[in-house]
Amino acid sequence: MKSQNIFSKIPKNLNHEIFEPLIKNNVVTIERIISKGQQTSSWYDQTRNEWVIVLKGEAVLTFEDQTSVQLKEGDFINIPSHKKHRVSWSDPENETIWLAIHY
Amino acid sequence: MKSQNIFSKIPKNLNHEIFEPLIKNNVVTIERIISKGQQTSSWYDQTRNEWVIVLKGEAVLTFEDQTSVQLKEGDFINIPSHKKHRVSWSDPENETIWLAIHY
Repeated sequence: MKSQNIFSKIPKNLNHEIFEPLIKNNVVTIERIISKGQQTSSWYDQTRNEWVIVLKGEAVLTFEDQTSVQLKEGDFINIPSHKKHRVSWSDPENETIWLAIHY
Repeated sequence: MKSQNIFSKIPKNLNHEIFEPLIKNNVVTIERIISKGQQTSSWYDQTRNEWVIVLKGEAVLTFEDQTSVQLKEGDFINIPSHKKHRVSWSDPENETIWLAIHY
């Protein structure tokens, strides 16, 4: 049994947001997401719930009703399926590392 | 939509390890675990897989074959169902905060 570290192996090229599945089966996906200044231009409208935590950095999620939630280190939120949302801001200076569980 | 913080609301009394479900449905449980110096004396023999990450602090997991894995901040490991394991050490000076996904 061997551990890995969520803060290691950060790709140098962060021109695009990076999605890395860590665990994926038919009921759950656990993924690391790395953002650096990106915003998502269109809404995420997901069939599964998403529990997401910011482990490093800072970002803002915006919902279809135009409310926003700022997420800093350790902040987590549960986004029900079909709750439309997008990343409206992420720190352009440093990478933001998210852990997302789709279930 | 409101966020919470994984590092906040740490109970003062940490005489026992604390398990707090954050999300629980019939396929997945996401829980926060707080340890402070505790060890588990008997083996965990779980029917589900467990993906676990140390978000703060430090601990050691030991497996039935007597191998151990030290986990520090950001270290994660996937423990298959029925892989017997226990927490053989956790930092006695500071709380260790784990995030576990049972799936």
